[in-house]
Amino acid sequence: MKRILVVGAGLSATSLIDYLLSKSEEHDWNVVVGDYDFNLAEQKINNHPRGIALHFDVFDVEQRNDAIREADIVVSMLPARMHVLLAEDCVIQGVNMITASYVSDEILALDEKAKEKGVLLLNEIGLDPGIDHLSAKKIIDNIHSKGGEINLFKSFCGGLVAPEYDDNPWNYKFTWNPRNVVLAGQGTAQFIRNNLYKYIPYNTLFKRVDNIEVLNEGKFEAYANRDSLSYRESYNLNEIPTMLRGTLRRPGFSKAWDVFVQLGMTDDSFELSNVSTMTCREFINSFLEYDIVQSVESKVQDYLSLDKEVMDKLIWLGLFENKKIGLDRGTPAQVLQHILESKWSLKADDKDMIVMQHLFEYTLGGKDHKLKSSLVLRGKDQTNTAMSMTVGLPVAIAAELILTDKINMSGVKIPIDKEIYLPVLEKLKEFGIDFVEEEVTD
Amino acid sequence: MKRILVVGAGLSATSLIDYLLSKSEEHDWNVVVGDYDFNLAEQKINNHPRGIALHFDVFDVEQRNDAIREADIVVSMLPARMHVLLAEDCVIQGVNMITASYVSDEILALDEKAKEKGVLLLNEIGLDPGIDHLSAKKIIDNIHSKGGEINLFKSFCGGLVAPEYDDNPWNYKFTWNPRNVVLAGQGTAQFIRNNLYKYIPYNTLFKRVDNIEVLNEGKFEAYANRDSLSYRESYNLNEIPTMLRGTLRRPGFSKAWDVFVQLGMTDDSFELSNVSTMTCREFINSFLEYDIVQSVESKVQDYLSLDKEVMDKLIWLGLFENKKIGLDRGTPAQVLQHILESKWSLKADDKDMIVMQHLFEYTLGGKDHKLKSSLVLRGKDQTNTAMSMTVGLPVAIAAELILTDKINMSGVKIPIDKEIYLPVLEKLKEFGIDFVEEEVTD
Repeated sequence: MKRILVVGAGLSATSLIDYLLSKSEEHDWNVVVGDYDFNLAEQKINNHPRGIALHFDVFDVEQRNDAIREADIVVSMLPARMHVLLAEDCVIQGVNMITASYVSDEILALDEKAKEKGVLLLNEIGLDPGIDHLSAKKIIDNIHSKGGEINLFKSFCGGLVAPEYDDNPWNYKFTWNPRNVVLAGQGTAQFIRNNLYKYIPYNTLFKRVDNIEVLNEGKFEAYANRDSLSYRESYNLNEIPTMLRGTLRRPGFSKAWDVFVQLGMTDDSFELSNVSTMTCREFINSFLEYDIVQSVESKVQDYLSLDKEVMDKLIWLGLFENKKIGLDRGTPAQVLQHILESKWSLKADDKDMIVMQHLFEYTLGGKDHKLKSSLVLRGKDQTNTAMSMTVGLPVAIAAELILTDKINMSGVKIPIDKEIYLPVLEKLKEFGIDFVEEEVTD
Repeated sequence: MKRILVVGAGLSATSLIDYLLSKSEEHDWNVVVGDYDFNLAEQKINNHPRGIALHFDVFDVEQRNDAIREADIVVSMLPARMHVLLAEDCVIQGVNMITASYVSDEILALDEKAKEKGVLLLNEIGLDPGIDHLSAKKIIDNIHSKGGEINLFKSFCGGLVAPEYDDNPWNYKFTWNPRNVVLAGQGTAQFIRNNLYKYIPYNTLFKRVDNIEVLNEGKFEAYANRDSLSYRESYNLNEIPTMLRGTLRRPGFSKAWDVFVQLGMTDDSFELSNVSTMTCREFINSFLEYDIVQSVESKVQDYLSLDKEVMDKLIWLGLFENKKIGLDRGTPAQVLQHILESKWSLKADDKDMIVMQHLFEYTLGGKDHKLKSSLVLRGKDQTNTAMSMTVGLPVAIAAELILTDKINMSGVKIPIDKEIYLPVLEKLKEFGIDFVEEEVTD
């Protein structure tokens, strides 16, 4: 009998836990789900005979050590900064660990020790990062194995509301952590284009979008992710002239979101004065010049030369209403998030949608080729959302492959090896997570 | 015989040390000047019989303790983050200390202990902060003492090249730490206007300037400082409807500087790739969209709708030249600073100029009043620059007043008390640092 310890029972863990429980009989597993909120852990277990719910406090050293010692593998779905607490103990105790998060410097520092102990710390095996690595690396390795040379690689991903439930002018709803959406893009986006390094600061990011079409789902736009350069090495694309990773939204979103960026409404570095008595209208006005004659609406419109479509989006959010914010305090970003949450939350019957697309240009046998690889997945219901499935299932499948000795590696890894991406992609197909490849002819 | 310890012998310490040495015979002082660079300390002492040069390492605990123990007062002209090392020892050993820097949280935390020990930690007594506090608080206290009510207070300050030596299209040269100039304004400016809190993000800061005239020196523009709110309490202006602090430049500067902000060239948060082989032209191009047809010049001009004046400023800096940057590595801000330093440095005979202006609107005896208080000071020569004089002399005068028992206070202070501002302002007049007050009639 093997024992899986899943730490963190939030939304992203639903499909993950369901998968592991569904395979527990076949593999003779027990699945321990630990969360600081015991009820949440119990809900996710849902009385399954092989499930064990646990009140788990990651900062309780003794409990952490005990729980890891008893486990055959640890899956951390905690906020990224907390992984390292588990990872350090996992290395000491010789237990493999999986996360869906970016490799932090702290995790990377454990690489050597993990190798010595024969421990695998597998990261970035969720959706983005995760399925993007699996699917892109499969194509890259395939082109390279035939002797092809890749000249361009663009990769886009977005979590959106499914079009059937899309009933607002932004064509967007929160399907994931709203705070991350509000703060997205702060810093400078870095990429390479025709062998020239390119940098896009935050205040230009939402003005410089790429436009793409995905299967029969229509048009999307993409703003550049912060770092498109660091994967050149892991993808074996050191010499690639053009490489860009981006985030997908429906057309028109970025132009309207840019209003918040330009006005400073996504700033998270200081607390506003007087939030407790502030209205939405006063909130947006605090970022505009004082004017005794002009209305708040016309100040925004004039200052940023906004068209009717953008103004309609702002009006729809209630930003010009004399309605109290309803927070005691907050940064601009926190106030904006609060306003957006009242408008952009999924309704009970709404379903979400994940869209991913890779674009490749490569030369093979003296000929130029273009390849599109696209994924679209709709959520099943409120708990089995497309986001929860695409983040959690690759993690769960990786756990299964490790526990059944199909993956044998050690050290700090991301899923760019054939040994991982082939079986995980294969199993994901059973859940409708499947890429459609199209050769593009101009 | 009393002993003054001056730590840090950089440019800002010249006028300060000269003042103290000039008074050393009269007051029976020895002036110890400590710097990590012994030669610099020796230069500043210039063989004065009452001067002692010292190789001083602020991180050498023993030396620090010994030097403070022997001193009757400590003047720190070190970078602001290092003051606290000296201040902690000063409090323990019961020695007063002066700095020209903003009160940091670490310094503020020493307030209670300093009071217990009867030690004065006097900060913000340079130029800005410093002379601005002295001169503004004098006027504010005067209006309040007559029963007046202040409705508006704007305060502007800038270090510029004197117009007689102004020979470039930016009408600007570095007269102070270039790095601070390049990074100035990052964050969000906060102020209050007609009782409305207003926030200006960095990407809008250089578009929203105030225009003022100062005496016979012509026109200036000002961008808002980061924090105009925190002095309301210390200035006794808690209920003031409009208060703004800003930085002065010559008209047109901000519009051109904004190009760097918009393109991301002042970003200090990441290192550029390939700096060692990069030209100025490639540097600016890395912030512009790829385009196989358009020139770099026309991409900048089109993207930001620049007029000829702004383009001329950029061209004059050599930004479009195929000239190597000449650095091995660097952030965008570091590369930009390097380019600017080759163009904006003061020449051997150039003189600098300090400009400060306070604007007040107040009601008194049922009537509305407007008051302008202006300071203009030109540097004497390369070492006695206006910046060095205005930063160093208030510090030196404060030291004299403390050592001669004219100032008797304890705890962490800024110079907003009559006991300090009156005698310091009086003595500054001897050096031509004198404000001109004008009642304004519309």
